[in-house]
Amino acid sequence: MASPATSIIVDWGTTSLRATLVGESGEELDYLETTDGISSLGKDQHEPALMTALAPWFSSLGALPVAALGMITSRNGWVEVPYVQCPAGPAELAAGTVRRSLPNGSELVFLPGLQDPLRRPFPDVMRGEETQVIGHGLDKDITIIIPGTHSKWARVKAGKIDCFQTFVTGEIFNLLINHSFIARGSTQPAVDDADAYLWGLHEAKQSTAMSSLLFSARTGTLAGKLSADQLRSFVRGLVIGQEFRQARDANWFGENGQATIVGNDGLNDLYVQAAEIFALKISLGADDDLTKGALTVLHQALS
Amino acid sequence: MASPATSIIVDWGTTSLRATLVGESGEELDYLETTDGISSLGKDQHEPALMTALAPWFSSLGALPVAALGMITSRNGWVEVPYVQCPAGPAELAAGTVRRSLPNGSELVFLPGLQDPLRRPFPDVMRGEETQVIGHGLDKDITIIIPGTHSKWARVKAGKIDCFQTFVTGEIFNLLINHSFIARGSTQPAVDDADAYLWGLHEAKQSTAMSSLLFSARTGTLAGKLSADQLRSFVRGLVIGQEFRQARDANWFGENGQATIVGNDGLNDLYVQAAEIFALKISLGADDDLTKGALTVLHQALS
Repeated sequence: MASPATSIIVDWGTTSLRATLVGESGEELDYLETTDGISSLGKDQHEPALMTALAPWFSSLGALPVAALGMITSRNGWVEVPYVQCPAGPAELAAGTVRRSLPNGSELVFLPGLQDPLRRPFPDVMRGEETQVIGHGLDKDITIIIPGTHSKWARVKAGKIDCFQTFVTGEIFNLLINHSFIARGSTQPAVDDADAYLWGLHEAKQSTAMSSLLFSARTGTLAGKLSADQLRSFVRGLVIGQEFRQARDANWFGENGQATIVGNDGLNDLYVQAAEIFALKISLGADDDLTKGALTVLHQALS
Repeated sequence: MASPATSIIVDWGTTSLRATLVGESGEELDYLETTDGISSLGKDQHEPALMTALAPWFSSLGALPVAALGMITSRNGWVEVPYVQCPAGPAELAAGTVRRSLPNGSELVFLPGLQDPLRRPFPDVMRGEETQVIGHGLDKDITIIIPGTHSKWARVKAGKIDCFQTFVTGEIFNLLINHSFIARGSTQPAVDDADAYLWGLHEAKQSTAMSSLLFSARTGTLAGKLSADQLRSFVRGLVIGQEFRQARDANWFGENGQATIVGNDGLNDLYVQAAEIFALKISLGADDDLTKGALTVLHQALS
């Protein structure tokens, strides 16, 4: 028999709302997704959108505590929740939550994002990824990589998220492949080429001049060395490889380095391959890290 | 009394055709510009477009040798002229020209672009900038910077262009400012802020992690340190500053370095400021470097 539902975790981003119904220990009992991301909602539309999305569960189960995280707590979301500063663990994040009551009496808990005040030139920020790190666990001192449009490298130390750094790798890749001279030279619709990706990684490992290296997508084509089919993956290798190179130069890892990849943005396999090129030993987080982490903070906030 | 016209130099790029009527020593006698760039012309339209553009001069002066350079000699242009390899001076470029006769008997000389075969991972290329370097002069061993969408750093040595490297700085800036998260946060239409540009340069000088540094355009805004008015110029400082940092790391200059900026793509003042931040001493080329260089190669080709 399934355990009873105890909470709802809502990962509410720019383009979608993803809700998970969970039991006491975070086991997923049900899941739903809508396209009511914050970019499609006006200032007074958040509560109705949430109530509509969760109606099936509320009507059969009654009121349940709801944890909401992601861009919904940003300046352009429903309620702007101030960032909590590193180092921070569940207790610090719980202390930074903002609470509301929903029309059916359910407690709504907005989880805060995280800020690294020591990063230069300005404090770095994340909103949502910290939940994945906490869900993975803070018991060991490790380096965590969270691939994405804006990838994060974070360090877990003494039971807290100690510090982190953002790399806008996915954003640069998308710009190049959709809007630049590379887009004009690449097969459309784009194809993936595993060898070209590895090739790009190897080239990135050998060059500090990223602004120059990107031009190789053109010179390789002109020289007849890179095909239109290979271009997209080669460039992906260049930018992800540069992320690893820059992360290494910033001391996120060194010789005999180890790191854990959490999150599931569809990039994990590519990041595992990149890590291999850089001799960085990788372990992988679980698919439900976000849910588990959100539940941990929610429990602490409500206790 | 003006000297007699001896030649026509046509700088024929993607979006425009720019023609200069010159005297024996390269003095500019007349100038015209049309929007018949190669991107708007089909395969059989180049000759008619050129004849129409030059008709006023041909009708009053008769046949004159015409030098054509730029993207018109590329794969997507009129006649693809193979790249000449570095090291190369006027003699090597003249040997690489391709000649045609125009309907009025004028000699049309297509100038080749330049390739640096030693650049990794693929030979680097330029098409047009080599003419500016030659026009500036090859008598002294110097480092030349040609700012642009795809900036070039070139070395003049022993009377030839010895080697060069491309940085896609302008392209990255345009992508970021028009299509990325930075575009959404920036004042539209964009404004220029001289202090923010210098600030960006200083930050770029201190960071090797370009993929990370670019995120500061967001974190600075979130922290209330960077205004929407400052964003564009700050980011421009970051990317141009990274070009200088990467160029320095690639040994284009060191302590007590000197370089000359040629070309006039509207970026020279910004590059002079960047050079100052990096303690690189700058001298400037002349506005007619391209015309003079093209004439030098044309003379050699016709002699």
